[in-house]
Amino acid sequence: MEGGVFLDNFLLILELIGTVSFAVSGGMVAIHKKTDIFGVLLLAAVTAVGGGITRDVILGKTPPTAFINKNYVLIALATAFVLFFIAKTNQKKYQQYEMQIFIINNIFDAIGLGIFTVVGVQVGQQAEQGENLFFCLFLGVVTAIGGGMIRDLMLKEVPFVLEKQVYAVACLLGGASYWYLTKFSALEIDVISVISIIVVFTIRMLATKYEWNLPKAIE
Amino acid sequence: MEGGVFLDNFLLILELIGTVSFAVSGGMVAIHKKTDIFGVLLLAAVTAVGGGITRDVILGKTPPTAFINKNYVLIALATAFVLFFIAKTNQKKYQQYEMQIFIINNIFDAIGLGIFTVVGVQVGQQAEQGENLFFCLFLGVVTAIGGGMIRDLMLKEVPFVLEKQVYAVACLLGGASYWYLTKFSALEIDVISVISIIVVFTIRMLATKYEWNLPKAIE
Amino acid sequence: MEGGVFLDNFLLILELIGTVSFAVSGGMVAIHKKTDIFGVLLLAAVTAVGGGITRDVILGKTPPTAFINKNYVLIALATAFVLFFIAKTNQKKYQQYEMQIFIINNIFDAIGLGIFTVVGVQVGQQAEQGENLFFCLFLGVVTAIGGGMIRDLMLKEVPFVLEKQVYAVACLLGGASYWYLTKFSALEIDVISVISIIVVFTIRMLATKYEWNLPKAIE
Repeated sequence: MEGGVFLDNFLLILELIGTVSFAVSGGMVAIHKKTDIFGVLLLAAVTAVGGGITRDVILGKTPPTAFINKNYVLIALATAFVLFFIAKTNQKKYQQYEMQIFIINNIFDAIGLGIFTVVGVQVGQQAEQGENLFFCLFLGVVTAIGGGMIRDLMLKEVPFVLEKQVYAVACLLGGASYWYLTKFSALEIDVISVISIIVVFTIRMLATKYEWNLPKAIE
Repeated sequence: MEGGVFLDNFLLILELIGTVSFAVSGGMVAIHKKTDIFGVLLLAAVTAVGGGITRDVILGKTPPTAFINKNYVLIALATAFVLFFIAKTNQKKYQQYEMQIFIINNIFDAIGLGIFTVVGVQVGQQAEQGENLFFCLFLGVVTAIGGGMIRDLMLKEVPFVLEKQVYAVACLLGGASYWYLTKFSALEIDVISVISIIVVFTIRMLATKYEWNLPKAIE
Repeated sequence: MEGGVFLDNFLLILELIGTVSFAVSGGMVAIHKKTDIFGVLLLAAVTAVGGGITRDVILGKTPPTAFINKNYVLIALATAFVLFFIAKTNQKKYQQYEMQIFIINNIFDAIGLGIFTVVGVQVGQQAEQGENLFFCLFLGVVTAIGGGMIRDLMLKEVPFVLEKQVYAVACLLGGASYWYLTKFSALEIDVISVISIIVVFTIRMLATKYEWNLPKAIE
C-alpha cells in the first residue's frame, strides 16, 4: 500500500519536474521569438500540457487531466511568469548570454522529454492495451513530443521532430527500456523510471553535442 | 418548463448568429487570400464549427454535434456562398472598400467570439466538472478561438491568438463573468448571456481600436 | 456468414493497398523535401494512418485502431523503407526522372484517396448515425484527406485541399456514390466499393490532367 502511495508520489514529482522543464523550454522559445507576455504564458503552457492532452484524447480519457486538474497549467504559468520577469529585468544580460541560455533550454527540454516518455509509457501500461509494446511506445512518444510539436506549429516552425529526429529516437529507446525493464527485471518502478529518463536524456544531449545526423535519400 | 424551452431557443439563436458571424469572418479571410470558391466554403465552415468540434472531442462528446446535426455546417456554407456571390459580382467595389470590409469582418468576429465563449462555458457547466471554473473557462476559450486557430494553421498564418492576444483575454474575462453571474447573481440566464457577450465584444473592439499591447520581455 | 468474412477480407485488402499507396505518396514528398530517413518513415506513416486516427478520435473509437493494431504502421514503414532504399541507391536516376516520379506519386495518391473514402463511409455506416449521409460523407473525407493534411502541416505547406480542391470534391462524389448504391442498388458491397473508388480516382486524375480550377471571387 505504502509502496503504491510512494509510487504515485514519485510519478507526481516527476510530472512536476517535467512540467516545469517544458514550461521553461517553451517560454524561452517564446521570449526568443519576441512574443509578448501572453505569448510566453501560452506557449509555456502548450509545451507543458499539450502532449498529455493529445495522449488523453487518443486514449479516450476525456476530459483530459490537464483540463480538470488545474495544477499542471498553473505550475507552467507560474514558471513562465518567473522566467518572463527574470528576462524582462535583465534584458541586456539575457541577450548577451543567449547562447548559454539556449544550452540551458536544451537541458530542460531533454529532462522533460525523458520524464514525459516514462509518464506516457506508464499510462499506456495501465490502459487495457498495456501488454502492447507498440501501443505503449506510441503513447510515450506522443506525450513527450506532442507539446513541442503543437508549439512549433503555432510558431510556424517546421515541427522539430522533422529536423531533430533524434528526439523521437531517444523517446523510443527510453520508452522501450522502461517497458522491458518493468516486464523482465526485478528492479523497482522508480529505479526503472530514473534509468529510462537517463537513457532519453543522454541520447538527446549526445545527439545535440555531436550533431548526429541520419542518412538522406538525396544528399 | 417554458423557461427551459425559451433558454434552449435562446441558446440556439445565439449559436445561429455566432455561426453566421464566424462564417462571414472566415469567408472574408479566404476571399482576401484569393482562394477559390471551395476554399471560401471550407474556411468559412472550419472557422464556424472548428471550435465546437475541438471542444466536443476534448469533452469526449463523440461524434461531435457538428458531424451529426448538419444545420451548423449548412448555415456556414450558405453564408459563405452568399458572401462569395456578393464579392464576385462586385469585385471592384469589394477591393476598393477592403479597409471598411476589414472593419466589418472585425465586428462579426467579435460577435462570434462573445457568443461562442458563452456557449462553451454553458456546455462546460452542464458537464460533470461544471463546478470547476478553470475547466469551464478552458472550454469557453477553445470553443471561441479553436475555429479561427485551425483556419490560420490551414492558411499558414501564425495563429492569431499569438498576435492579437487580447482575443483570449477577452474570452477569459467574458467567460468568468458568465460563470460568476450564473453562480452568484439572481439574473436570468439569457440576461447573463447577453452581458457576457457584451463584455467579450467590448474588450475585443476596444483593443483593436486603441491597439492595446501587452509587454514583451525583450523589446 | 461467408459473405461477411469475404467482405471483411475485401475491406482488409483495400486498406492494405490504400496504406501502401499513401505511404509511397507520403514518402516521395518527404524524399523530395530532402528530409532524412526518419523524416521519410514518419511522413509515410502519418500520411497512411493520420486520416484513420483522426476519424477514430472524432467517432470516439479510442484508442484508434492504428495505435492498437500495429500492422498498418508496420506496412507503411516497410513501404517507406523500400522506397528510401531504392531512391538512395539510384540517386541520379531518381532526380533525373523526378517528373515521372511525381506522376506515379499522383496515381498512388489517387488510389489511396479512393480507397480511404470508401473505408471512411463504411465505418460511418456501421456507426450509430449510419443513416446520416452528411455524417458518412464527413467521415469519408476525413479518412481520405486527413493524413495528407497533417503531413502538409508538418512540412509547413498550405494543406493541399486548399490548393487542389478537387481532392475533396472527388471524395464527396465517390463517397455519395457509395452511400446511395449501398442503399438503393442491388449490387454487392465489393462491386460498389470498386465503382466508388474508380469515381474518386477518375475525377482526381482528370482534374490533374486538365488542371480543372474552381472560380475565385477576386481574380
